[in-house]
Amino acid sequence: MIHHTTNVRVRYPDTDKMGVVYHGVYVEYLETGRTEMLRDLGLANSALEESGVMLPVLEVCVAMRRPARYDEVLTVHTYLRRPIGARMQLEYEIYRDAELLATGRTSHAFTTVDTMKPVRPPKALLDLLAAADDGTGLKEI
Amino acid sequence: MIHHTTNVRVRYPDTDKMGVVYHGVYVEYLETGRTEMLRDLGLANSALEESGVMLPVLEVCVAMRRPARYDEVLTVHTYLRRPIGARMQLEYEIYRDAELLATGRTSHAFTTVDTMKPVRPPKALLDLLAAADDGTGLKEI
Amino acid sequence: MIHHTTNVRVRYPDTDKMGVVYHGVYVEYLETGRTEMLRDLGLANSALEESGVMLPVLEVCVAMRRPARYDEVLTVHTYLRRPIGARMQLEYEIYRDAELLATGRTSHAFTTVDTMKPVRPPKALLDLLAAADDGTGLKEI
Amino acid sequence: MIHHTTNVRVRYPDTDKMGVVYHGVYVEYLETGRTEMLRDLGLANSALEESGVMLPVLEVCVAMRRPARYDEVLTVHTYLRRPIGARMQLEYEIYRDAELLATGRTSHAFTTVDTMKPVRPPKALLDLLAAADDGTGLKEI
Repeated sequence: MIHHTTNVRVRYPDTDKMGVVYHGVYVEYLETGRTEMLRDLGLANSALEESGVMLPVLEVCVAMRRPARYDEVLTVHTYLRRPIGARMQLEYEIYRDAELLATGRTSHAFTTVDTMKPVRPPKALLDLLAAADDGTGLKEI
Repeated sequence: MIHHTTNVRVRYPDTDKMGVVYHGVYVEYLETGRTEMLRDLGLANSALEESGVMLPVLEVCVAMRRPARYDEVLTVHTYLRRPIGARMQLEYEIYRDAELLATGRTSHAFTTVDTMKPVRPPKALLDLLAAADDGTGLKEI
Repeated sequence: MIHHTTNVRVRYPDTDKMGVVYHGVYVEYLETGRTEMLRDLGLANSALEESGVMLPVLEVCVAMRRPARYDEVLTVHTYLRRPIGARMQLEYEIYRDAELLATGRTSHAFTTVDTMKPVRPPKALLDLLAAADDGTGLKEI
Repeated sequence: MIHHTTNVRVRYPDTDKMGVVYHGVYVEYLETGRTEMLRDLGLANSALEESGVMLPVLEVCVAMRRPARYDEVLTVHTYLRRPIGARMQLEYEIYRDAELLATGRTSHAFTTVDTMKPVRPPKALLDLLAAADDGTGLKEI
């Protein structure tokens, strides 16, 4: 499993009249966690899309345990299980300091950018994932 | 079970560079489905909040089957199982004409507005749900 | 001048921790006003884009006078001055009942969809605008 | 004048079907520029709100010159003219490397958080602005 962390800061438009982060905004925080994991693995999602392959989200779930508030810095932990097959599964935890605020998961297909037809996972990505393997199945990047 | 339908039109800002609705936006479509169901039941969410009770989302899941595109009119079907307990569970289907594009579900707590402390489901809501019961367990509103 | 009105309802995600509509969301309300005006004129923006022409926003301004709140129904008035030249200029007023909450304006170019190169205003649009002219310079649609 | 810079990265949900940043999203980039300027001045907007004062936006304008695209890192330049009076005026420039993509401006009132009543600019903020003055009228922070 690959484990990656990145930070996001809660912006004003992320909040709602409850005074906390609107639940739909967590989906965007997962996006940031996933994007920065791919970038740090060595294959930015933008580069992947330029190569003609994209990763549309098939399913997304978020469970909120405690509210996050304006201007807080949250840490998004992103976990990728290997090997990946026709679908890529990711799991997420969002912390404020040591406190777990939310968990999430996403499932992705691999498709062409132009016609959204399913394709095999790109070899460049598979190679990077294999290289990230440290034998224990857990790799911090 | 209570079944409610409402329409949403895909707006420009709902789309992303894939040319389709961004997956996080479906969470907002579920919000609209739920809001209009409560309004048509006779207790608008805004009135519920003015009475001091709100329905924070504990969990939200969305599964996308086919992409929705700019300017399309989508139908959001919202399903509420009864009786509701300490948590309210809703399920959703999003259609474009006869084609199922996405499914979703949300789970909600009942809390005070000011301190977000758990409270019992408001009697006004329970009474409306009971009144909506037609004996078959399925009520179209 | 063409004058068009449409309604929008303030959604939960439109609000922020001030308890009112986030100022950036008014830009989306202007988008809805403009979109529905074009549709009612007879040339939906989506059809315009399918024909290969789009209307990117060059400038947008919004002035907020009074806050709008969750679940309120707002009326977006959209005004289009004619004739339109290389740029299309629109003005907007957003009301809650008789109370003016915000004003706005947008300026648009005409470009190709694929390469974003400037093009002349589409004849189909010019014809519809001319047909909407009632001789007084003001046309309610 | 106080001049501050911060970076934002274009996220997937910031894009629209044109393949570029949706114009309404620039309003959020201005928000980030302003927020980080206040933080670096020594008075975070979140702390200001906890002290009971907030800075609602009265007017916002954005002019787009060239499109920004997914995953690009943009630099937001924020300019604050002094002295500030009953309203605070800010100007902004958004660059991708040396290329100016957009300009903006916002105008803000000072109000109480709870009742949105106008108040005088907080002394803590005025003192920080005075301290940031280097005699030339231009201060980079």
